[in-house]
Amino acid sequence: MIDLAARDAADPLAHFREQFALPAGVIYLDGNSLGALPKAAPSRIAEVVEREWGDGLIASWNDAEWVTAPRRIGDKIARLIGARSAEVVACDSTSVNIFKALAAAVSLNSGRKTVLSETGNFPTDLYMMQGLDRLSGGRIVAKAVEPDAVIDAIDADTAVVLLTHVHYKTGAMRDMAATTAAIHAKGALAIWDLSHSVGAMPLHLTDAEADFAVGCGYKFLNGGPGAPAFLFVAGRHQADALPALSGWFGHSAPFAFRDEYEAAPGIERFLTGTPPIIGLAGLEVGVDLMEQADLSQIRAKSLSLAEVFEHGMEPLVQRFGFTAAGPGDPAMRGSHISYRHEHGYAIMQALKARGVIGDFRDPDVMRFGLTPLYLSHADIARAVAILAEVMETGAWDRAEYRVRAAVT
Amino acid sequence: MIDLAARDAADPLAHFREQFALPAGVIYLDGNSLGALPKAAPSRIAEVVEREWGDGLIASWNDAEWVTAPRRIGDKIARLIGARSAEVVACDSTSVNIFKALAAAVSLNSGRKTVLSETGNFPTDLYMMQGLDRLSGGRIVAKAVEPDAVIDAIDADTAVVLLTHVHYKTGAMRDMAATTAAIHAKGALAIWDLSHSVGAMPLHLTDAEADFAVGCGYKFLNGGPGAPAFLFVAGRHQADALPALSGWFGHSAPFAFRDEYEAAPGIERFLTGTPPIIGLAGLEVGVDLMEQADLSQIRAKSLSLAEVFEHGMEPLVQRFGFTAAGPGDPAMRGSHISYRHEHGYAIMQALKARGVIGDFRDPDVMRFGLTPLYLSHADIARAVAILAEVMETGAWDRAEYRVRAAVT
Repeated sequence: MIDLAARDAADPLAHFREQFALPAGVIYLDGNSLGALPKAAPSRIAEVVEREWGDGLIASWNDAEWVTAPRRIGDKIARLIGARSAEVVACDSTSVNIFKALAAAVSLNSGRKTVLSETGNFPTDLYMMQGLDRLSGGRIVAKAVEPDAVIDAIDADTAVVLLTHVHYKTGAMRDMAATTAAIHAKGALAIWDLSHSVGAMPLHLTDAEADFAVGCGYKFLNGGPGAPAFLFVAGRHQADALPALSGWFGHSAPFAFRDEYEAAPGIERFLTGTPPIIGLAGLEVGVDLMEQADLSQIRAKSLSLAEVFEHGMEPLVQRFGFTAAGPGDPAMRGSHISYRHEHGYAIMQALKARGVIGDFRDPDVMRFGLTPLYLSHADIARAVAILAEVMETGAWDRAEYRVRAAVT
Repeated sequence: MIDLAARDAADPLAHFREQFALPAGVIYLDGNSLGALPKAAPSRIAEVVEREWGDGLIASWNDAEWVTAPRRIGDKIARLIGARSAEVVACDSTSVNIFKALAAAVSLNSGRKTVLSETGNFPTDLYMMQGLDRLSGGRIVAKAVEPDAVIDAIDADTAVVLLTHVHYKTGAMRDMAATTAAIHAKGALAIWDLSHSVGAMPLHLTDAEADFAVGCGYKFLNGGPGAPAFLFVAGRHQADALPALSGWFGHSAPFAFRDEYEAAPGIERFLTGTPPIIGLAGLEVGVDLMEQADLSQIRAKSLSLAEVFEHGMEPLVQRFGFTAAGPGDPAMRGSHISYRHEHGYAIMQALKARGVIGDFRDPDVMRFGLTPLYLSHADIARAVAILAEVMETGAWDRAEYRVRAAVT
């Protein structure tokens, strides 16, 4: 028997719960899809809107330091992912940043034309590869192979390998350092999608010698819905990587308004358009909060929460037909836990109706995010107890729970 | 003598001034760079942050209609630019949307490989063309010629012409219908950058048979700093234009999470990443406010404000060495008025110190935005009187006014 109260009492992160505005009666297990609202966000966003925009108007680009926000927030994110200052900018969407990273990586490894990933990767990673392939007219070839076959599939034509560190469905986590080394050993570059790992565990991009990375601002970073994403480019590549999306904010002198693009000397060259200031303000609040936490403690608590979840699920798995969707070894997973069930969608709807919010991923994956900053061990146990009740009573088996929403 | 009081008394748009939160003592002539804050924006943004994000959490993608926001706001913008429903989406930055439009236009006109624009265009338009050129490895060629030479420069290799409707420096306005017809007559497609015209005058994209257009959300639309931009794709092109930035939000079934990209049937295929919900909320407030105004009245008042400005400048131009930067005929200008002066930067700083906020564009252009929703004729006359005083007293000639800021 796990002593929930003892674990919660000893939790060094417990006080972070008070920093988030979560509705009463809800156990929120979907912070890996959209992180919860930091209590500091509304007032900071209001300040940006009312004081900086409303009163400061155009002068706020200088006076409120809007112009340096992508780099300033990027430097904070760099500290969360084991990167150096001037290697990260916060900007655009994850999808657009994937495109930038792919195009830059291929240009650095010219002579090779394949961009390689795994089947079942988060779709936008694959779609952006396919778009680059089409646009290039065959100069760049997008290819995806089974997850276990990626390293073997790297050949003399492979320019870059795009992999997700923690899988969005299963939670399966790759060994970043070993995988990057294997990719490099075959002469390819590595792009890591950190969407499901940034803010959920310590990351070590510099130590792993990662070449590029992208990540999401609105999951574990709690930056708000559709928050700007980020792009990491290892310092050693920056001077040689000319951006494909070469917008005016990436110019060496944007306000000289010259006709010819000249890339900014460092990471700023990967900026494109005018930075989304209000969205960046929300992101910065989330990142600032995350910086106050110890990522090793976050990882330890995530594993502890997962243990409670799995322990609670033990009597349910066989009896009700759940199967674990991810690796059995918690050390090989990120910070969400997933189960397959043929009625997964309806079961998840039944849970939501009872205040337990996870999500569903086609065709049959129920996904539960374990966010150490605002969940307790008691929350997890309670969520599993509600799931047990939903299954035991057959409460999930109602027509209304089978109505599919636009966003699942 | 212009009767300012009479013009202001007869102004059908005067009541809109009360809808904006402008600081006391400021005459804001930079709404063409960053529009002013609508009073409705803070509460709407707070609602999105606190209620929709904080309380609604992930369910707000459905319940608060986040998922359809890019299209819903796009439809509203369509009405402002004379386009049809389902031809516009609000998303990404202007720069990124330019890239999408360029890539799509070239793919529709294959066999031709040149993308053509004018020298001195807003830099990001040229830079995105140059980036596409580099990325394509020569399959697409970026070319810019003198503004007056664009139509003559269209040849059998010109796939698409990218032009800005109202020039960011001079305010010079192109005849959209005639220019589009001339472009089409030579077998090329037309992309219009509406950044300095949307919200400043009636536009007629459908009547002009424009193929693509992009525009900015934070100038005359008052959407907030770095607000999402928009992309127009004429309905007749949508089915054949496969997006180069093919992200998951442009997929026909984003939540089916398939490995292969399949473009959504309509304008939604031009969405890329997860929509920036907080930024879109600010934009929607600005667009909703603009929809309440009559664009013909906006244009008429803009011309009337320009007349007051020019009338006031008459005695200053020769005496102090100003030269008009744009066309002499107000009908050939957009909604800002620009003058060149060798000390333009310092003069603009002196004006700002006195509450008259315009901006400066290298090397010597002083730019004054005339935004009919929140400026009166009296404001304009007062601004010019302050400029006269600055010049007559030589107050601009101080070292502190020559210190260049990062953003000008």
